[in-house]
Amino acid sequence: MLNVTEVLKRMVIGQAMRTEELGETLLPKRLALPIFASDPLSSVAYATQEILVVLTLGGLAYLHFTPWIAAAVVALMAVVVVSYRQVVHAYPTGGGSYEVASTNLGPSAGLVVAAALLVDYVMTVAVSVASGVDNIISALPSLAGHRVLMALGFVALLTAMNLRGVRESGRLFAVPTYLFIGGVLIMVATGLFRYLLGDAPVAESAAYGIRPAGGDASLVGPALVMLVLRAFSSGCTALTGVEAISNGVPAFRKPKSRNAATTMAAMGITAVAMFAGVTTLAVLARVHITDDACRLTGLAGDCSTYTQRTVIAQLASAVFGGTDSLGFYFLQAVTALVLILAANTAFNGFPLLASILAQHRYLPRQLHNRGDRLAFSNGILALAVVAGLLLWGYRANVSSLIHLYILGVFTSFTLSQTGMVRHWNRELRTESDPAARRRHQWSRAVNATGAVITGLVLVIVLITKFTEGAWLAVLAAVLLWLMMRGIRRHYDSTAAELAVTDPHAERQLPSRVLAIVLVSTVHKPTMRALAYARAFRPDRLEALTVAVDREGPARLREQWEEFEIDVPLKVIDSPYREITKPVVEYVRSVRRAGPRDVVAVFIPEYVVGHWWENLLHNQSALWLKSRLLFTPGVMVTSVPWQLSSAASADHPVARAPGAYRRGEPTPPREGAVSPGTSP
Amino acid sequence: MLNVTEVLKRMVIGQAMRTEELGETLLPKRLALPIFASDPLSSVAYATQEILVVLTLGGLAYLHFTPWIAAAVVALMAVVVVSYRQVVHAYPTGGGSYEVASTNLGPSAGLVVAAALLVDYVMTVAVSVASGVDNIISALPSLAGHRVLMALGFVALLTAMNLRGVRESGRLFAVPTYLFIGGVLIMVATGLFRYLLGDAPVAESAAYGIRPAGGDASLVGPALVMLVLRAFSSGCTALTGVEAISNGVPAFRKPKSRNAATTMAAMGITAVAMFAGVTTLAVLARVHITDDACRLTGLAGDCSTYTQRTVIAQLASAVFGGTDSLGFYFLQAVTALVLILAANTAFNGFPLLASILAQHRYLPRQLHNRGDRLAFSNGILALAVVAGLLLWGYRANVSSLIHLYILGVFTSFTLSQTGMVRHWNRELRTESDPAARRRHQWSRAVNATGAVITGLVLVIVLITKFTEGAWLAVLAAVLLWLMMRGIRRHYDSTAAELAVTDPHAERQLPSRVLAIVLVSTVHKPTMRALAYARAFRPDRLEALTVAVDREGPARLREQWEEFEIDVPLKVIDSPYREITKPVVEYVRSVRRAGPRDVVAVFIPEYVVGHWWENLLHNQSALWLKSRLLFTPGVMVTSVPWQLSSAASADHPVARAPGAYRRGEPTPPREGAVSPGTSP
Repeated sequence: MLNVTEVLKRMVIGQAMRTEELGETLLPKRLALPIFASDPLSSVAYATQEILVVLTLGGLAYLHFTPWIAAAVVALMAVVVVSYRQVVHAYPTGGGSYEVASTNLGPSAGLVVAAALLVDYVMTVAVSVASGVDNIISALPSLAGHRVLMALGFVALLTAMNLRGVRESGRLFAVPTYLFIGGVLIMVATGLFRYLLGDAPVAESAAYGIRPAGGDASLVGPALVMLVLRAFSSGCTALTGVEAISNGVPAFRKPKSRNAATTMAAMGITAVAMFAGVTTLAVLARVHITDDACRLTGLAGDCSTYTQRTVIAQLASAVFGGTDSLGFYFLQAVTALVLILAANTAFNGFPLLASILAQHRYLPRQLHNRGDRLAFSNGILALAVVAGLLLWGYRANVSSLIHLYILGVFTSFTLSQTGMVRHWNRELRTESDPAARRRHQWSRAVNATGAVITGLVLVIVLITKFTEGAWLAVLAAVLLWLMMRGIRRHYDSTAAELAVTDPHAERQLPSRVLAIVLVSTVHKPTMRALAYARAFRPDRLEALTVAVDREGPARLREQWEEFEIDVPLKVIDSPYREITKPVVEYVRSVRRAGPRDVVAVFIPEYVVGHWWENLLHNQSALWLKSRLLFTPGVMVTSVPWQLSSAASADHPVARAPGAYRRGEPTPPREGAVSPGTSP
Repeated sequence: MLNVTEVLKRMVIGQAMRTEELGETLLPKRLALPIFASDPLSSVAYATQEILVVLTLGGLAYLHFTPWIAAAVVALMAVVVVSYRQVVHAYPTGGGSYEVASTNLGPSAGLVVAAALLVDYVMTVAVSVASGVDNIISALPSLAGHRVLMALGFVALLTAMNLRGVRESGRLFAVPTYLFIGGVLIMVATGLFRYLLGDAPVAESAAYGIRPAGGDASLVGPALVMLVLRAFSSGCTALTGVEAISNGVPAFRKPKSRNAATTMAAMGITAVAMFAGVTTLAVLARVHITDDACRLTGLAGDCSTYTQRTVIAQLASAVFGGTDSLGFYFLQAVTALVLILAANTAFNGFPLLASILAQHRYLPRQLHNRGDRLAFSNGILALAVVAGLLLWGYRANVSSLIHLYILGVFTSFTLSQTGMVRHWNRELRTESDPAARRRHQWSRAVNATGAVITGLVLVIVLITKFTEGAWLAVLAAVLLWLMMRGIRRHYDSTAAELAVTDPHAERQLPSRVLAIVLVSTVHKPTMRALAYARAFRPDRLEALTVAVDREGPARLREQWEEFEIDVPLKVIDSPYREITKPVVEYVRSVRRAGPRDVVAVFIPEYVVGHWWENLLHNQSALWLKSRLLFTPGVMVTSVPWQLSSAASADHPVARAPGAYRRGEPTPPREGAVSPGTSP
């Protein structure tokens, strides 16, 4: 049964796995760290840079705020990590912020978190991949023209890897993440050591001046505060993905909560060290970077074709001795790799969250299906498509994409921390052990602090980013929220409508079975349908044909005589050459005559083996069946006749949608083809 | 049952017509002329121009060949018209060249003609619409940037009009065609009269020189012959569409043949008068036109932005007193209109030919279906799509499109005239009346002359146009030819396979009916399916479920107990979470146990009313049914349950493909949703 589609699928995603193999895809800590923490770790590659890019909107005058902003980001990260360790312990089932908010603040708040997170997962993929491509271009400037294509290629690669299943992608991702951590820390250490020796590294852009974006007037008062807050908002991108570990607890090996909390602590310490180090080095090496190369002064060539290197690239070049040093290439390679793999955090988090939402009936339940390799394939594909569209739409430009980012993260931070405060309040109401009460009170204090601070940051981000693109993210989240509520309502009403209320009444048999066989000409499928219908011993059996012209029914009557068929033949006229409507109306009239009867409509069909053969036959049978399903008290029976091409084709398109439409049962007849279609 | 799609459809194409109204769409001669002859008549708008454009490749030196080439074209047209009057009389059923060639030269030759004609109909639409747009731009140069959009808009308009039916479009088209004929003849008469008075009109381009395309070397010998022949080939575009009347005989009022022949003669005389007049006037007024404005000398402005007016526009301006005169605007308006309506010739001819081919089983039989307004809707739509793609691909450029043109016309001319010679030979073999014999011999002489001359022209066209784009038309025709043969083979083999060979054996009943009801959970659709299956009194009845996890079957067993269902429940395991494969395998195993039994599979389905609701339910039932149809000895029964949304929606999407996919029968259940799909 092998075919090309199947072979390709197997090559991309590997052999199908049995449901029982699910347990084996759990992660040890050393693999969980790179999988779930590659996003916050890799964001040091752009968080520092985005702080600098915002500050240089005012020229070089305000770069001295950089350390203070970085310190605020580091403090914020510490607060969030400590807060989320509480979540991991209290909610080990992996609902993460969504579960915390739903449980403690109600389903609507939970859905807000879910919508915000889904949007942010998409942005994680887009921003990380775009930044990864940027770092590749920093090392190989000749690739600058292929930015979008490269980004889409990486998304496709990530999709394929994730469709193969969690564990394998974990292994694949561990090495570059660790190399990146090591590389950045070595770079920072080397740079600081050289500074202490009096041989401070100097960035390639250190000599450039920067013209302020709004003219030379210096900023004062609110405008300056706004600039600093915007820079802080951009720096907060370092915090994206901290969330991921708390959502991914079920993927950890046992004891799940403890392992997840430990991993989170390790991630927090590493991220702080790297971010603080890179920012310090960027200040010492005097990296001057701006969103528009044409505001640089002292530039030798044409500014419109000049590509500024990323901060990481400038630092690596300064520390390791130029853009042709081995250290520079190594660091660029691992930075790019880890950024692209950071998108994998979202490829783990998004499908898991979507699957939980689907299980709670807020999203189509297909998102809860595990694919051949036990990954949530539909969620993976949905993420890939949306992220790909964003990258394509924004031409993979990090600075444009970043404005849509982190709003969701802080929404979910704030709501889940608020939910945790409620959680501890509830615990405290029932807890009497003084030691436990003290622990709970401490936890509550941690989460309350977290809630207040992240809430404050949320407001700052909203104010400073809304008009620059964040409105789109807000809109997307609101639409998602509305959609999820609608889906839930639909599922609920369907379930209520279908529930068995009176098993005895519903088990009652119809009083009579009336069988109708649709015919248009007498051939083997017709004969088989008549025989099968008769085998059911219905209370009444008749053949029905629709007359769209004069010749068709006349020919049919002749055949009826010729083959001595002893079933009454009913002819209904169709002046407008329709097939479906007259049949449905006839069936309804039969039902009206006996409301407790059931009408069984038998449709002879022949089945072809190739999709293109369907183009050569009318699809009347398909239409008719669809319409009959809307008619109460009817059952529709297809009696297939397999043509030799269907038998010999051996189901080559068994999984392709629409490939199995059936031809209508009238074969064209030489010299006597009627202009209309036949049932 | 009104809905948006339906209302829109009615607005575009009008109310549905009964089959009996078909007779009323026949055409009187005064309407048949504009419908069928607008193509050859309107081609005077570009035939002269294309002769000039080719000759000016050699500068102004060879323009004196123009009258001779035009004379050859006129002679050729006379030969073709006279020849085709024979066809109209001999073959009144409207197969035209296709029928003549098939009958007399065999089906393969007939198919060659058919393929060539189908390609040429498409080209007629493309070239006429493109030239019409050119003439609009000649009058309103500011529209030059919207060439392609305008062309596609006109194709859409023509499509809509033709979907409304033949007669109405005939009325609509009659007025502009007659205005065009009158306008051109008045322009020619006025121009010639002014010339005789010594006040010859002078074209706006008369003063420009033209640099030869290949440098200043003058052409001699073969190169000059080639140039003249190419100009002649281009001028032969005047002959396209003569064919149309012979294909359209059935659309004429009775006596069909005589009316068609009269119309053809009127068309020939008019076309010759107009073509000869325009060409004469173009020579007298010294129109200097070229394919590349940058080869013009003496041009004041920038040649790259200069748009040359069409020959018709230059003549109208010269005769009627400038580009702001009323006469100029009138002639441009009717020229543009008639050119765009000329495409209508193809919109009449193509669907009719395609329908005949479909009736002969060379094309999908859907092309033989009459739409609501009794037009061959599928053919009209197919033509519109292909012509639209061509216009889009060639940016609606007449000079590029024209190279793909007329090859098909001359192929069909040659083959049908050859066929006619054979026809008369056959007639002469049986005819004994001397008067009739003389008439037949005269007809044979006419057709033989036609065959030789058009054959010669075909060779000339092939040689001079092949490398310039005609290869694409040849390729398309060859592919069409191969496809049509393949389709015929498929229909023949299907018909042979389905024919009843042994009515008694084929009427034999299966020995037992084994009913299997697929269930995944117990709800109303399941209860109904069980009741209906039981009503058929099968020899054996069982319920079947696929276990994709542990919880599903356990829950099902509980429900089985709770509702006291006395049907045995069979559970089959599916470790790879597939539904279709285990069910199909089980059904096969049941059939293997009793090869003379029939297995009736009952599938409970619930039907939703909105297409988007289908997205929320797995489509497992649809897959499963498709796959089961490939399994011998099976019949598949859908037992629908109409959800309230399906009942209240009142079938709003009754004609939209795919709108009626059914949801799978498992409703999601709170807190107990399995990760896999259920049957």
